[in-house]
Amino acid sequence: MLPNQSGAVNPARPLSVPPSFRSASLATVTTLDPKRRKGGTDALDALISLVEPELRDVNDIILKRMHSPVELIPQLAGYIVAGGGKRLRPVLTLAAAKLCGAQGGREKALAACVEFIHTATLLHDDVVDESDLRRGQASANAVFGNKSSVLVGDFLFARAFQVMVEDGSLDVLRILSNASAVISEGEVLQLTTSNDTETSEEAYLEVIKAKTAELFAAACRIGAVVANRPAAEEDALRSYGLNLGISFQLVDDVLDYSAVQARLGKTIGDDFREGKITLPVVLAFRRGSEEERGFWRRTMEEMEQQDGDLERAIELMVKHNALRDSVERARHYGAVARDALGLFPNSPVKRALLDVIDFVVDRDF
Amino acid sequence: MLPNQSGAVNPARPLSVPPSFRSASLATVTTLDPKRRKGGTDALDALISLVEPELRDVNDIILKRMHSPVELIPQLAGYIVAGGGKRLRPVLTLAAAKLCGAQGGREKALAACVEFIHTATLLHDDVVDESDLRRGQASANAVFGNKSSVLVGDFLFARAFQVMVEDGSLDVLRILSNASAVISEGEVLQLTTSNDTETSEEAYLEVIKAKTAELFAAACRIGAVVANRPAAEEDALRSYGLNLGISFQLVDDVLDYSAVQARLGKTIGDDFREGKITLPVVLAFRRGSEEERGFWRRTMEEMEQQDGDLERAIELMVKHNALRDSVERARHYGAVARDALGLFPNSPVKRALLDVIDFVVDRDF
Repeated sequence: MLPNQSGAVNPARPLSVPPSFRSASLATVTTLDPKRRKGGTDALDALISLVEPELRDVNDIILKRMHSPVELIPQLAGYIVAGGGKRLRPVLTLAAAKLCGAQGGREKALAACVEFIHTATLLHDDVVDESDLRRGQASANAVFGNKSSVLVGDFLFARAFQVMVEDGSLDVLRILSNASAVISEGEVLQLTTSNDTETSEEAYLEVIKAKTAELFAAACRIGAVVANRPAAEEDALRSYGLNLGISFQLVDDVLDYSAVQARLGKTIGDDFREGKITLPVVLAFRRGSEEERGFWRRTMEEMEQQDGDLERAIELMVKHNALRDSVERARHYGAVARDALGLFPNSPVKRALLDVIDFVVDRDF
Repeated sequence: MLPNQSGAVNPARPLSVPPSFRSASLATVTTLDPKRRKGGTDALDALISLVEPELRDVNDIILKRMHSPVELIPQLAGYIVAGGGKRLRPVLTLAAAKLCGAQGGREKALAACVEFIHTATLLHDDVVDESDLRRGQASANAVFGNKSSVLVGDFLFARAFQVMVEDGSLDVLRILSNASAVISEGEVLQLTTSNDTETSEEAYLEVIKAKTAELFAAACRIGAVVANRPAAEEDALRSYGLNLGISFQLVDDVLDYSAVQARLGKTIGDDFREGKITLPVVLAFRRGSEEERGFWRRTMEEMEQQDGDLERAIELMVKHNALRDSVERARHYGAVARDALGLFPNSPVKRALLDVIDFVVDRDF
């Protein structure tokens, strides 16, 4: 650990990206040259439109089942559940079920369970990370308090299991209880790698597999389970979801240093301010000079941050192609996800699931 | 709301009970005249000894199943799970199963699930309440941090559901997912009654039923489920657990103002410092003069607390018999719990379950 090299230090204060930086690094920081983009919002919208009636039912189930006589629960849950997001995970459950030819509609209640578990982890993550913004709104814990967020997260988690019990499939209960345990393990593992600039790429991957990709995997796999498809298809959908989820988190971690995000008015630098070691940091640290490593140690281990540090971090990432190569890693997992669907015959929903891979890798929002 | 009447104010600082107060009010504050006590630790020890071999297996299951490759999880979980407590809830599951003549030992893994869920709620409760002491040790969140406590609680909760899925009973999954949802509703409800001195006895009861008694009820009911007993016995054990749990929490809330607790070196006044409205406050407020109500509003609504306030609170409770009558309410629920077991034939385990009611009502620790 290097001694504190900084003068005035205020790690808690959000660092804003100056306009000059935003425009200058727009093309470099993200690899989101419009000509390269195959996915974009259109790909996700196309997938959503294929499951639109079912998704409407899922939304109704979500609203109905997050009800409680304790008013604060639907208030707070509604703030985050109903408050936005693309419902990517429940959409994946619905699409996977459609891909497998599921009949009977069980996937709708189970898609709601997936969203409840996701929301519970968001609420608990917001509490512990003290992040102020989630989807551009003030996070639930900033509005309602940490205490409420923890408890309402617990309620949604329990409610998900109640709904699964009503569905009555021990297979689904197994998949989602396993996923829930792995997610919390991933979150704890992330804590223990926090502020360690020597975190390896493998350790980082293990964290994002557990905390993010496992729920994507479960969401997709459930589609095959409700359709009573053979194990090979269950495995294929699990693999698709897992690799898509890894891609998704990799790109999410890149976007936290993205000038496009800053330009869209979204907060960037949350991970930096928290000392969260993501792949862009892992790569920039390993590719950096000893002086640069000192910078990373000071800012992300000793948490001695000052004005201009976030900008310097992004400059170092750009210099070492850490953001570009993180997106390339995401592209690799996207390719694996693509091949996982190989054994399914062509169909509109299969095409849409494949296009969503490009959306996940190339999105800039 | 009255204006702030206090001078120096430091609500965060724990108030200590002066030795003179401790000895003077020992007999008055608690109703624990040794001559009246039928229960005591002996009653709980007697129950434990009846299920001792099974409880040893439960402890092994707990240690084995709280394992994770993420080392912080068993470390932190072990701190609280293995760290002490009488394992009252799993003991109740084992005893109820024995009362029902269960064979096959399924109740042991399920008793571990009950303890995991209980531990998860403790971890989350410690986070949100910022309490410093739990069973006389520093609370897990004081040692490991809030973030870890939330996430390890999530892990234990998910692990409980994994173990239930392995057991394979949808009935048990239903009972414990329902209980988990109700517990979190109770905790949220408690938040919304916090700092409201006009909380009614009914509202208070609703909170403790949900946050405490529901898990006691589920723990006992599972004993009948694994033994495939008729609904009437399931209901009887649920009722026993529910009413025992209400008693338990009532007495717990009395003990937070107990001089005996203070003498034993335990922290008292946690609820007072948090502005948590428990039955002793409800009764003292309703029975108090307008000047006294002003005191309660200042200290528990406006949270303007100063040296001597905890002592005054206890004096007012003693003056209005609020502590004594709260224990009398606990005795009432204990009587209901007693009758719930009426339809079971006499046996050593039935006698022990009945004696535990006295332990719960008359304990001073």
